[in-house]
Amino acid sequence: MIKVGIVGGTGYTGVELLRLLARHPNVEVDAITSRSEAGMAVSELYPNLRGHYDELVFSLPDAERLGRCDAVFFATPHGVAHALAGELLERGTRVIDLSADFRLRDADEWAHWYGQAHGAPALLGEAIYGLPEVRRERIREARLIAVPGCYPTAVQLGLLPLLEAGLIDVEHVIADCKSGVTGAGRGAKVPSLLAEASESMKAYGASGHRHLPEIRQGLGDAAGGPVGLTFVPHLTPMIRGIHATLYGRLTGEPGDLQALFERRFADEPFVDVMPAGSHPETRSVKGANVCRLAVHRPGDGDTVVVLAVIDNLVKGASGQAVHNLNLMFDLDETAGLDAPAIMP
Amino acid sequence: MIKVGIVGGTGYTGVELLRLLARHPNVEVDAITSRSEAGMAVSELYPNLRGHYDELVFSLPDAERLGRCDAVFFATPHGVAHALAGELLERGTRVIDLSADFRLRDADEWAHWYGQAHGAPALLGEAIYGLPEVRRERIREARLIAVPGCYPTAVQLGLLPLLEAGLIDVEHVIADCKSGVTGAGRGAKVPSLLAEASESMKAYGASGHRHLPEIRQGLGDAAGGPVGLTFVPHLTPMIRGIHATLYGRLTGEPGDLQALFERRFADEPFVDVMPAGSHPETRSVKGANVCRLAVHRPGDGDTVVVLAVIDNLVKGASGQAVHNLNLMFDLDETAGLDAPAIMP
Amino acid sequence: MIKVGIVGGTGYTGVELLRLLARHPNVEVDAITSRSEAGMAVSELYPNLRGHYDELVFSLPDAERLGRCDAVFFATPHGVAHALAGELLERGTRVIDLSADFRLRDADEWAHWYGQAHGAPALLGEAIYGLPEVRRERIREARLIAVPGCYPTAVQLGLLPLLEAGLIDVEHVIADCKSGVTGAGRGAKVPSLLAEASESMKAYGASGHRHLPEIRQGLGDAAGGPVGLTFVPHLTPMIRGIHATLYGRLTGEPGDLQALFERRFADEPFVDVMPAGSHPETRSVKGANVCRLAVHRPGDGDTVVVLAVIDNLVKGASGQAVHNLNLMFDLDETAGLDAPAIMP
Amino acid sequence: MIKVGIVGGTGYTGVELLRLLARHPNVEVDAITSRSEAGMAVSELYPNLRGHYDELVFSLPDAERLGRCDAVFFATPHGVAHALAGELLERGTRVIDLSADFRLRDADEWAHWYGQAHGAPALLGEAIYGLPEVRRERIREARLIAVPGCYPTAVQLGLLPLLEAGLIDVEHVIADCKSGVTGAGRGAKVPSLLAEASESMKAYGASGHRHLPEIRQGLGDAAGGPVGLTFVPHLTPMIRGIHATLYGRLTGEPGDLQALFERRFADEPFVDVMPAGSHPETRSVKGANVCRLAVHRPGDGDTVVVLAVIDNLVKGASGQAVHNLNLMFDLDETAGLDAPAIMP
Repeated sequence: MIKVGIVGGTGYTGVELLRLLARHPNVEVDAITSRSEAGMAVSELYPNLRGHYDELVFSLPDAERLGRCDAVFFATPHGVAHALAGELLERGTRVIDLSADFRLRDADEWAHWYGQAHGAPALLGEAIYGLPEVRRERIREARLIAVPGCYPTAVQLGLLPLLEAGLIDVEHVIADCKSGVTGAGRGAKVPSLLAEASESMKAYGASGHRHLPEIRQGLGDAAGGPVGLTFVPHLTPMIRGIHATLYGRLTGEPGDLQALFERRFADEPFVDVMPAGSHPETRSVKGANVCRLAVHRPGDGDTVVVLAVIDNLVKGASGQAVHNLNLMFDLDETAGLDAPAIMP
Repeated sequence: MIKVGIVGGTGYTGVELLRLLARHPNVEVDAITSRSEAGMAVSELYPNLRGHYDELVFSLPDAERLGRCDAVFFATPHGVAHALAGELLERGTRVIDLSADFRLRDADEWAHWYGQAHGAPALLGEAIYGLPEVRRERIREARLIAVPGCYPTAVQLGLLPLLEAGLIDVEHVIADCKSGVTGAGRGAKVPSLLAEASESMKAYGASGHRHLPEIRQGLGDAAGGPVGLTFVPHLTPMIRGIHATLYGRLTGEPGDLQALFERRFADEPFVDVMPAGSHPETRSVKGANVCRLAVHRPGDGDTVVVLAVIDNLVKGASGQAVHNLNLMFDLDETAGLDAPAIMP
Repeated sequence: MIKVGIVGGTGYTGVELLRLLARHPNVEVDAITSRSEAGMAVSELYPNLRGHYDELVFSLPDAERLGRCDAVFFATPHGVAHALAGELLERGTRVIDLSADFRLRDADEWAHWYGQAHGAPALLGEAIYGLPEVRRERIREARLIAVPGCYPTAVQLGLLPLLEAGLIDVEHVIADCKSGVTGAGRGAKVPSLLAEASESMKAYGASGHRHLPEIRQGLGDAAGGPVGLTFVPHLTPMIRGIHATLYGRLTGEPGDLQALFERRFADEPFVDVMPAGSHPETRSVKGANVCRLAVHRPGDGDTVVVLAVIDNLVKGASGQAVHNLNLMFDLDETAGLDAPAIMP
Repeated sequence: MIKVGIVGGTGYTGVELLRLLARHPNVEVDAITSRSEAGMAVSELYPNLRGHYDELVFSLPDAERLGRCDAVFFATPHGVAHALAGELLERGTRVIDLSADFRLRDADEWAHWYGQAHGAPALLGEAIYGLPEVRRERIREARLIAVPGCYPTAVQLGLLPLLEAGLIDVEHVIADCKSGVTGAGRGAKVPSLLAEASESMKAYGASGHRHLPEIRQGLGDAAGGPVGLTFVPHLTPMIRGIHATLYGRLTGEPGDLQALFERRFADEPFVDVMPAGSHPETRSVKGANVCRLAVHRPGDGDTVVVLAVIDNLVKGASGQAVHNLNLMFDLDETAGLDAPAIMP
């Protein structure tokens, strides 16, 4: 059994890791840390886990104990992995970071968006951006993984085939994204109250959002050069789910777009290109590690529309983190990730 | 008191007309018709109206009785107003049609999108498209009003200032719209069940939706020529509300966009241009006849983003219908429409 | 015009007072206070009020300024009205307190449930419990009103006819109550997040809740002696609304229960006894100052079941407060309170 | 592998069976029938199953094909199992009926509540009521199982310890139950629309509901005589979940109720007695085959309150059906049922 630790286990990506790992045949959770809840049983905070982790108790972060794990997940706010990752790597523990700490290759850009200096620039060289559909082989060899953000996962998967094939105007790409409220985390903030966020829809960060540079970096890699992206996220009254609606302008006759998408993801266990004419629903991926895609070309015009849905806590966070773990430890890629979505 | 009738009063726009008119100082509801519920008291179907319309009972549609009203609202599926409007106009009753029957000026285009011949092409010449922010003066004189659809209202109000000023590329305009489920009406359909539509988000009609030609017609009027529009509507898990996110490409240096929008709607009682940097929420207009707008230019680039929210049943339907009535009968424009939105 | 002030206007009962008073023909809001948001425009915090109170700005609480009002509403946590009410009464300003400060006649019992000494025991003698259906005449003369809590309003209205008529076993009454989340206020607490409270149902305070002594006091008044009440509140995934399901054991043959209820509330403008066999929905009172009731006797057995619904922010708080104001200032009882509920 | 068939697979209990069986190590789904969707791929109707049952297609019901299965689940409206069960049993196929067809032992009572004659009275003698916590050993030997209804499961599990120990007045038991909307099935009915059922709470069937006789029968078995039950179900704005709040009057000093409950369910894999003072949330069982219970005695008085939560589609239907299958075929009881609930 592979022994793993989780740093910052009280948030939503933490409990989702526990839910997924409860069914993983090759993994056991050896330690889980929390500064605020140290000493509390995991199943007291998350009663859905009663009967599954009855011995597991939150402890204070402790590099020595974590260092005895084969791998450690960081399910923390930004900055925490900066401080601890280096020491764990030295102890031979692999690190899978679900936060933004190692997603941007440029430490200055990171500092610009997060308002503080990058805390571990020396590690940037070996951090691998953990989007398996793009760099599966490098993930297998990696010691330090930056798990992609939720919006970036949906937007990149939806646009990769178009950008790699050079079919759209890279200067004017639009990503109109809708997210459930767990994307904002478990913090007690007034705008996230049911009384405020339910029965309503709104955009936020229309003039700039922290996921923007991460998406641009990923799209730029696919396009082989800078991509001009307008990204507008919206808050949607649901618990889980991201729906990305992506607009690109075709620069020529694109051929069979449906076939292009199906080919691109033919061997991917966690990307589902739906039949032509489909409109994927976020509920069709609730709890599952899958991205469902559909590609449309309204009126056979010069605009292509891609619809991409994921569960932000699974394919957009904890499930993708487990997928990376499976690759790093040479396990079956789908281990722990093979349950269907729950619907209705 | 102005006597009005309502044809097809069992649907959501019907009950919303009754709710608004209950507070209207100059209007009394004289007749309400329904084929399916004839004989039932209005307050039995809609218990929120108990104590307000205790004498009002659904009757079968009857042109003679309706013809004794000063004005008749059609809150019906398409096709019904085609059949009845002419006779009512002949009897001197003015007609305010909330359906799509008279929104398109071109009978052939109507037939194409609705799959049946237009039933009253002779009336198209005098039907006025009832968007007061565009043709207030013509509405005052009109006998027959086509109340704009919900999506078209939000999209047009958000784009008018840019198109009238000639600031954006008219060939590539994008309207990404999110609607609550009442937009689909009160019909018993599986996809509208709470168990299906809640906790989920999906696009629909990505390759073509009936509101598309109506929006194109209105935008074309503003631009003075054809507008190339990509329109993708989405179903959102909320009862009421439309959020339109509109993207245009600036063709030059636009000047002060905030000032442009404020100027355009300075005298409009039902359009609220929010302060720069705002993100309007649909809940801020719930139950109220108002469109709130915000304009953004991310990174001072060449893409302009307009956010527009309305309540689809009020400014997107019944409230706008009452606004038209107020104009037609020379009443205070805000009569019956001056209540704040309900929030939270 | 009657000039009113609102202390603690940033919470949900505060904004609801503003919404209702915006349509009140005889009242103008002269001052609104908040310690946390002093200096902010009301319409900045609550954009639904844009266009309605554009000059109104939160100010620090100031007894002199408030004392120039004819009446002051307290929409505050407990303890605040204790500190200020006396001074306002001395200045001749009437006080309508929506908090729990003056609801219990016994200062010791108050201290027991609120964990602090009662701050104004000398005022208890003249505080009137503002349930108009019970003590309308005393409210007309009152200087200090304790507006009933939301649960207590629904439970008392549902049980009054049975207790006043002596039809049920007073030792074993059960009130199973379900509330929307605004009942918990606008505080940023994790259990009130959409991600936590949506798609779930739970009881709370099953072993004792602060509203219990208030309900017992009111029921005891009606019964003419102590009432043994089991009260279990539940959190329901909706914004507004209380549904009280009340169970009593008949001590004899009760006669026509439907007629009893109809007679008891025949002259009440804000209590609606629905037809026999009805099941009132909370949505039928959303935004309206009304309590709808239905009485059932399953299988003609010895258990009577009463169903009572209110909007916790209206008939359960701000609307009832305005009703009290109307009585105190000899206005039309329904002034500002005559709008139908919003449905759907 | 055990080969199973599903009759009536298009409803919510059908898709939930498929979701659970997808992970079952010993079962394969050989046939699924639907009159309305014959010929359609399962994954077309339920896209969450894409990648899991890609070969499975709805077929017309066919006793010969179903008769080749080891067991057949009926996920059908009442009446269907009556017609088919006998023939399948003759072919040696075991039947697990999720409908109400075999739940009542008395054919006349069945006819009274369902408004039609019982269609297979001869089979009533061998039908076993499949509540494993009560008759595990008889289930192991059974050929025909009547899976308990959702409300009956929650109510019986919550009251069993009290009734078996003879601690409460059996003439006056109250079950106030709250259910998510999937309890009403997937039928397209107006009251189940999101626009109607969301943001609202209501009771229904307060004067009599079809689950009442089933619950009475089960409680009577536990009490050893008739139980006088008042049962009021409520519709709650959530997809899944039942919350039963149960009230009994203690007839004497009950001893340690917490210990009583813990002892009663000590060996039950799917009943979780929570710590004293707990308030179980329905979300803590979403998607999982578990009933969580808490027992309260407010103010140490003579009323006991039990809180019981289940997922109506799992422990209240499909999960319990699989549990029965596991028992009947001597498999690990938890096979296919060991995943934690999904939370948030």
